[in-house]
Amino acid sequence: MTDRIFTAALLVIGDEILSGRTHDKNIAQVATWLNVQGIRLAEVRIVADDEAAIVEAVNTLRARNDYLFTTGGIGPTHDDITVDSVAAAIGVPVEVHPQARAILEAYYAPRGGVNEARLRMARVPAGASLIENALSGAPGIKVANIFILAGVPHIAGEMLAALTGTLEGGLPMLSATVGCWVAESEVADLLRETERSHAGCQIGSYPFFREGRVGANFVIRSTDAGVLETCRTDLIAGLRGIGLDPAEGGI
Amino acid sequence: MTDRIFTAALLVIGDEILSGRTHDKNIAQVATWLNVQGIRLAEVRIVADDEAAIVEAVNTLRARNDYLFTTGGIGPTHDDITVDSVAAAIGVPVEVHPQARAILEAYYAPRGGVNEARLRMARVPAGASLIENALSGAPGIKVANIFILAGVPHIAGEMLAALTGTLEGGLPMLSATVGCWVAESEVADLLRETERSHAGCQIGSYPFFREGRVGANFVIRSTDAGVLETCRTDLIAGLRGIGLDPAEGGI
Repeated sequence: MTDRIFTAALLVIGDEILSGRTHDKNIAQVATWLNVQGIRLAEVRIVADDEAAIVEAVNTLRARNDYLFTTGGIGPTHDDITVDSVAAAIGVPVEVHPQARAILEAYYAPRGGVNEARLRMARVPAGASLIENALSGAPGIKVANIFILAGVPHIAGEMLAALTGTLEGGLPMLSATVGCWVAESEVADLLRETERSHAGCQIGSYPFFREGRVGANFVIRSTDAGVLETCRTDLIAGLRGIGLDPAEGGI
Repeated sequence: MTDRIFTAALLVIGDEILSGRTHDKNIAQVATWLNVQGIRLAEVRIVADDEAAIVEAVNTLRARNDYLFTTGGIGPTHDDITVDSVAAAIGVPVEVHPQARAILEAYYAPRGGVNEARLRMARVPAGASLIENALSGAPGIKVANIFILAGVPHIAGEMLAALTGTLEGGLPMLSATVGCWVAESEVADLLRETERSHAGCQIGSYPFFREGRVGANFVIRSTDAGVLETCRTDLIAGLRGIGLDPAEGGI
């Protein structure tokens, strides 16, 4: 363990997200997985199936984060241009990865065999290694600090599972939630003061309207378990001090 | 109507999305609404509640798109810094908007009255106008080409409803979907050739695994209804020509 904070960016590639046709499920999935690895998701971008847009995003995001993950655009059809775009971004040619080719040949042997389209999924930026995909054959790709994952959420999830524990991270971000049936605007001062008096903690306020009443969940985040617990205890005491009945764990 | 393509970017602001705690619902909502206005969602970024990150994203995105929408960070608590960050990005001070103040005073009169936190929601970048929020009082904000919306999806939806028909757009993007029980890799050549022979159309291929079988939906997009229909008819004929049974409207 180290005190250094490790960050990652996520680049979601796909016209179908920008058109509203498909609701992204990978952002939350990647974010949750990164937390467990001790890596903070610092930023997300969503771009179209457009090489110039992908190249710009890849080069900005990989330079200022420890890791860059991409989802989408690694299938067999003409609109799958992620591999070519990442290769262009990092300035290497695209080549067929022999192991990926072998995996695809074995996977498709009982499914009609490989064809040109299916072999597109064996193409990688030169120098890449593979990320196992136990579910559907076509592997993910690691090159430099870039992890190229599938867009289909359960396949991306398989690839993340294969990567679990293999990336260097720092202290995981811990969190504690306290809920209250109160308008957040009535406790804004308390939240601000509580955050201010506990260095190393952030408090987020997430209001909701449920069962005909307003309420809010207050999420405290810190990498230090002791600081987190002190802040949580003080926030609960503060809420009780103004006559509220906070719910530990949130509402 | 004009032939010019109008584009928008969306900036989602909030630690809760990057931590994976909250699943974003605004991207698809904004994308779908923009389509109807004849505006294309060109890119999305998600950043933390961090002024420097917001300023950078605002200035990049507003410069290269006709419109920039933001969601999140306009509530009454200390972690709501969108207004201050947008003001910093465009180089204007923050001021209290008299009409916003009146709206909040009226809204909170039967709810305990305004306090300092609630009046934070009347603060706007200088020169801004308001976007009506019929649901919960606190208005959205329009300044320059930036539209600042709430993060809570149904409140953001109310603000979009108030903006409907007020933004200049171009030809709306039309789409048609054809579905097939086939592995997309078996029809990759057909898709590529069909797209290539119909200028002004894009075909996206979206595979799925359902009821124990693989299939895919092919989405054709164009701003020209005639070109779209010709492409759709040709794709259906092409799929039938290789022995498949395409489903109009998708599977």
